[in-house]
Amino acid sequence: MKRYCYEHEHLMFQEAFRAFLQQEVVPFRDEWREAGIVPREVYLKAGEHGFLIPQAPESLGGIGIDDFRFQQIVAEEIGFCGETGFMPQLHTTMVAPYILNHGSNELKQKYIPKAVSGEYILAVAMTEPDAGSDLSGMRSSAVDMGDYYLLNGTKTYISNGICGDIFVVAARTNPEKPHAISLFVVEGDWQGFRRGVKLNKMGMKSQDTAELFFDNIKVPKENLIGEEGQGFKYLMGGLAKERLICAAWNTGTAEYAFELTKEFVCERKVFGKYLSEMQNTQFKMAELRARFDMAQAFVDTLVANINRGDYDSVAASKAKLLSSELLCDTADEGVQLHGGAGYMDEYPISRVYTDSRITRIFAGTSEIMKLIIARSIFE
Amino acid sequence: MKRYCYEHEHLMFQEAFRAFLQQEVVPFRDEWREAGIVPREVYLKAGEHGFLIPQAPESLGGIGIDDFRFQQIVAEEIGFCGETGFMPQLHTTMVAPYILNHGSNELKQKYIPKAVSGEYILAVAMTEPDAGSDLSGMRSSAVDMGDYYLLNGTKTYISNGICGDIFVVAARTNPEKPHAISLFVVEGDWQGFRRGVKLNKMGMKSQDTAELFFDNIKVPKENLIGEEGQGFKYLMGGLAKERLICAAWNTGTAEYAFELTKEFVCERKVFGKYLSEMQNTQFKMAELRARFDMAQAFVDTLVANINRGDYDSVAASKAKLLSSELLCDTADEGVQLHGGAGYMDEYPISRVYTDSRITRIFAGTSEIMKLIIARSIFE
Amino acid sequence: MKRYCYEHEHLMFQEAFRAFLQQEVVPFRDEWREAGIVPREVYLKAGEHGFLIPQAPESLGGIGIDDFRFQQIVAEEIGFCGETGFMPQLHTTMVAPYILNHGSNELKQKYIPKAVSGEYILAVAMTEPDAGSDLSGMRSSAVDMGDYYLLNGTKTYISNGICGDIFVVAARTNPEKPHAISLFVVEGDWQGFRRGVKLNKMGMKSQDTAELFFDNIKVPKENLIGEEGQGFKYLMGGLAKERLICAAWNTGTAEYAFELTKEFVCERKVFGKYLSEMQNTQFKMAELRARFDMAQAFVDTLVANINRGDYDSVAASKAKLLSSELLCDTADEGVQLHGGAGYMDEYPISRVYTDSRITRIFAGTSEIMKLIIARSIFE
Amino acid sequence: MKRYCYEHEHLMFQEAFRAFLQQEVVPFRDEWREAGIVPREVYLKAGEHGFLIPQAPESLGGIGIDDFRFQQIVAEEIGFCGETGFMPQLHTTMVAPYILNHGSNELKQKYIPKAVSGEYILAVAMTEPDAGSDLSGMRSSAVDMGDYYLLNGTKTYISNGICGDIFVVAARTNPEKPHAISLFVVEGDWQGFRRGVKLNKMGMKSQDTAELFFDNIKVPKENLIGEEGQGFKYLMGGLAKERLICAAWNTGTAEYAFELTKEFVCERKVFGKYLSEMQNTQFKMAELRARFDMAQAFVDTLVANINRGDYDSVAASKAKLLSSELLCDTADEGVQLHGGAGYMDEYPISRVYTDSRITRIFAGTSEIMKLIIARSIFE
Repeated sequence: MKRYCYEHEHLMFQEAFRAFLQQEVVPFRDEWREAGIVPREVYLKAGEHGFLIPQAPESLGGIGIDDFRFQQIVAEEIGFCGETGFMPQLHTTMVAPYILNHGSNELKQKYIPKAVSGEYILAVAMTEPDAGSDLSGMRSSAVDMGDYYLLNGTKTYISNGICGDIFVVAARTNPEKPHAISLFVVEGDWQGFRRGVKLNKMGMKSQDTAELFFDNIKVPKENLIGEEGQGFKYLMGGLAKERLICAAWNTGTAEYAFELTKEFVCERKVFGKYLSEMQNTQFKMAELRARFDMAQAFVDTLVANINRGDYDSVAASKAKLLSSELLCDTADEGVQLHGGAGYMDEYPISRVYTDSRITRIFAGTSEIMKLIIARSIFE
Repeated sequence: MKRYCYEHEHLMFQEAFRAFLQQEVVPFRDEWREAGIVPREVYLKAGEHGFLIPQAPESLGGIGIDDFRFQQIVAEEIGFCGETGFMPQLHTTMVAPYILNHGSNELKQKYIPKAVSGEYILAVAMTEPDAGSDLSGMRSSAVDMGDYYLLNGTKTYISNGICGDIFVVAARTNPEKPHAISLFVVEGDWQGFRRGVKLNKMGMKSQDTAELFFDNIKVPKENLIGEEGQGFKYLMGGLAKERLICAAWNTGTAEYAFELTKEFVCERKVFGKYLSEMQNTQFKMAELRARFDMAQAFVDTLVANINRGDYDSVAASKAKLLSSELLCDTADEGVQLHGGAGYMDEYPISRVYTDSRITRIFAGTSEIMKLIIARSIFE
Repeated sequence: MKRYCYEHEHLMFQEAFRAFLQQEVVPFRDEWREAGIVPREVYLKAGEHGFLIPQAPESLGGIGIDDFRFQQIVAEEIGFCGETGFMPQLHTTMVAPYILNHGSNELKQKYIPKAVSGEYILAVAMTEPDAGSDLSGMRSSAVDMGDYYLLNGTKTYISNGICGDIFVVAARTNPEKPHAISLFVVEGDWQGFRRGVKLNKMGMKSQDTAELFFDNIKVPKENLIGEEGQGFKYLMGGLAKERLICAAWNTGTAEYAFELTKEFVCERKVFGKYLSEMQNTQFKMAELRARFDMAQAFVDTLVANINRGDYDSVAASKAKLLSSELLCDTADEGVQLHGGAGYMDEYPISRVYTDSRITRIFAGTSEIMKLIIARSIFE
Repeated sequence: MKRYCYEHEHLMFQEAFRAFLQQEVVPFRDEWREAGIVPREVYLKAGEHGFLIPQAPESLGGIGIDDFRFQQIVAEEIGFCGETGFMPQLHTTMVAPYILNHGSNELKQKYIPKAVSGEYILAVAMTEPDAGSDLSGMRSSAVDMGDYYLLNGTKTYISNGICGDIFVVAARTNPEKPHAISLFVVEGDWQGFRRGVKLNKMGMKSQDTAELFFDNIKVPKENLIGEEGQGFKYLMGGLAKERLICAAWNTGTAEYAFELTKEFVCERKVFGKYLSEMQNTQFKMAELRARFDMAQAFVDTLVANINRGDYDSVAASKAKLLSSELLCDTADEGVQLHGGAGYMDEYPISRVYTDSRITRIFAGTSEIMKLIIARSIFE
């Protein structure tokens, strides 16, 4: 189904980024999975081509075009090439905006140019062992010591936990107020910053997820993002874009899974007929395709809304909820239609299956999405 | 979730049509269900206000604005007020276009103005006892007798079969070629035209569905629509709009069912708590709302595409497939959340449940939709 | 799949009851639907043949065999012939046991023989306008006046509300204790007993459901069932059998729906092939058949357990929950595979669709079943 | 829910086998996963305790009790402890019976005693690269050379492909007749027998799956199982037990996944409440539990039927189809309720998720099951 949301410049960008991925990412996928991490060179190369944080102003090294479609394309193409370790969408849409939107000029100057160039790999450290989607359980604390903040705590499930250089860290700055959370920019080589072992996950094998330990880190006062105690508001403010970028990643990956499966059923014969000639195959693929096109139209609509200034985080939650279900269903049916091959690591569909399982959990579980949507219905 | 697809004139039209329905339709719903048919006056009144066939050129009595959003609004509002007998969407989008797009000027002059005014109620007679979605089984025939066509055959499941005045009838004009179907405009009071009994249906109680019998009807040659043997092409050509209008009707009705249920669960207490406070209620409603907004965005996107000249009948099939499932699921969950009340005729949700069941069957069953979509994937 | 649970005497009983239904019920189904009620003669005839309350001791007119398989057969066969108005399973399994198990000898002598013979049609009056599955909201009260109880209140959704003669009524006997409910045998022709209009329902058209109004009814003290304040316990005690009998009714009806659909798809051709030759039809029917056989095995197992004295009301809740979903899914797919015909009242599948919708609601909604099951998991 | 199918001796056997697994298997699970294979010692130890091929007659070293419940218990307990590499159920129920039921006395004497003792690990080699569930595509051939059969071909997805000693191999013995398949006992150390690399799978990490290559293996004539050309019949004859044992394994594993999840939700707090107190958790767990008990009753019923001599392979296909769906759904919901933890390898639920995905594919895909069931409905 034809999409009309992209104009000439977007299609150029899409083509360039797709070519970049085919050349610099896809050939190394097995190697990176084996290593459990991606090399920092890929961020540097992406930075060279202007694929990182394109929304940053030119003065900070970016392109300065705040059109969310470019970020959408990055997420879609990452999904469509099946990459799960190299995450420019995390870097660009889920971390950089905290600094770009709420940080001081000094902070921006200090971190954004090198993040645009790929010298700095960004990450965000929010989740804690006892506080997943529920921020009120957060225990990390940053105590104002006059000259600096003294940061202590533990974070877990941190994407880019090993390869990350710069972390946006959430911590409580007021022991009395559980929601008084502040955000800080913390460098990975500071004293007291320790990375745990790389966590062994079901999928996303080239993605380095780790625990982080903060042991009396002295965070300079200028590394506070925005105002003290406003972290929760900043976090909430970014959700519409974050969840929508998850949805764009999901649709990209769902299309990848769909194409892998389509190719397989067109080549594989059973009982003398191509799988693609079986009505069961046809109907399953038709259902997935219909759902895909509907989800795509929804994401495109919400991206257009964001571009017109309508930041509807509930709508983004809906898109994340449904697109992650679509992705998981597409991967599941893909494995099924592959038969035994679908269970073998050498067939990419088997990887999509385990990779995609996290999408109903991370960045807010499906249950959290439903709570948010329900609140908007009944309040 | 905010929709940006309607501009000022659409919102005015929507408001006017909604007010019309509240005044001229909703108060009579029970009466019309009892009668099993709607009075022709409602078409006349709708015609007076310009709600019928607005796309017809001014020279034929219409408004002459070929913006599909107006037809979308009609279908949505019909659904949203829960009406199933008065069907301007059938009249406007599923019948009139055959004459408007393919008929001779003479034919248009003869029938369109009175259809715009509501004096003529339109219907289409395609389905036969042994040929549902499969047109190749059609048996009705129109034999060229030189001066006229001699029409014989039987049609079934014809909406507006009793109250209709003017029928677009499909018949075979060449016994050798099963796909050589032609379309004719046939008047309901011509000799040889006989209406069967009103069929007793599961739902849509105010809608008159009937069998039609054609017994040696002499159809004047000028009542052939377009060219002989091109009927199949004309029928196919109208599908994108027809199926999309079904989808718009589905979303409208789904919103109606959702609102009925929302209201009920906010008022009804069980075990000392409002139903709306139960997490099961919240999650079910959240899922439905998310799916609704996604479906709505899809329909809006496809309407915009039609307005830019992209008639994608496969995409419309996807919209019809998924929106009818959404509607049925919304009605089903609505009944469930109503508990015993949901099974009682006095609660409108029970009617939506039986009314909506037809949407996965008529205008092409869900299975046909899947066949069409599958063909587009694998061809 | 072969069932081994029935022995010779059960198969004889099954055959006899099936023959009775074919002769005395099936031919009159349309007539009874039209009337919205069944004639009392059918109960008398059933009584003559010994099909009512077979578990009653011979001294009370019954057969005196307390083998639950006979009651299972009654429910299955009622379902399998598609009857929804004549309800011996309600009479036998859901009402009579209150009197048989907890009533005084006097009470049994007074009511059971005539219930066995069909002279008395039984019903139970529990649900109230503001108290469905939640008994704690019950408002009907029976005040001890020394010589009698003074009964006041309103009941709703009462099956056999119009044709019933004898009602087991639940009412509060202690205004201080919300759970202090007592059960009474109330005769329908007593002063102060008023029946409301027959409620218009989505389905089960031959079943008379009504509101009942109790206006200062003087209930003789001997018509109290068992002990005062023990009603809740008696109600709970009957649940295992009641819910299991619902499940048996569901499997019987599901088999009926399956057979109707199987017959249709074996006769109907589309695109030159029988529907039964389409892989979609085959897979859908295969899924339903597998689920059916699994549900059947579950019900048979639970009946055997009851016969060995294991009254597991949680297990019965599981059977009711899943069998009602199976039934609704079978009816839904049946309608779908019938196409347009499935929406027409003349095709029995359309009736099964609306009839079966109540099974997820009555005798405890699916949500209540889940609450009960969850409690057993987590307590 | 109480099960009555096991008698004292079964419960003793169950307890003993469970203890064995806790002592000899569970502590080594991580080690075996790392190695990608289990040590042969575990088979020897199992053999010592009499857990392998208990149905073999005493003369061949077995216990000689042909009560299928013992095999059921083995499969259930393997599932319930989450083991996927050590597969006595494959050894006992899916391979040994070919020799036991159809082999010559000589063949039995040669192989069964050492299989009972665990000296020989058994495997079956049926699937080929181009022939999965469709045996008619088999290419491996065994040509009668007078003194021996000359075996050539390639097999794939062979469980125990690396650790197996004795393989039941299917090959074509008549190039003219595609269904003329014969079965042979082939030893893994014979000349011309080559094992490919261990295949890297999505899950079942301790299970060694491999390709096998047969290059001019000389198979002694006495190693033909039964009669030449009867292999297809022998394969079909074993299906009822094989698929039922898959179902028992599935229910065992589903219970394991359920218990893991139950434990987690009872310990984990979110927003100040235990997950087990959330209605969503309760309802999801209730649905799974109800489905589990129903599936369990079905399997128990079919095992009883097998014990009475009713080998219904269609019923077994139904049990396999539905129990594998139940298992996958239980694992999926389990991961979801674990949140981020569910994606981490250290939490066993994440392993069940990937392990269980194969159950809808191996031993006949769900699609094959549906074909089989459909054939039984419509033939």
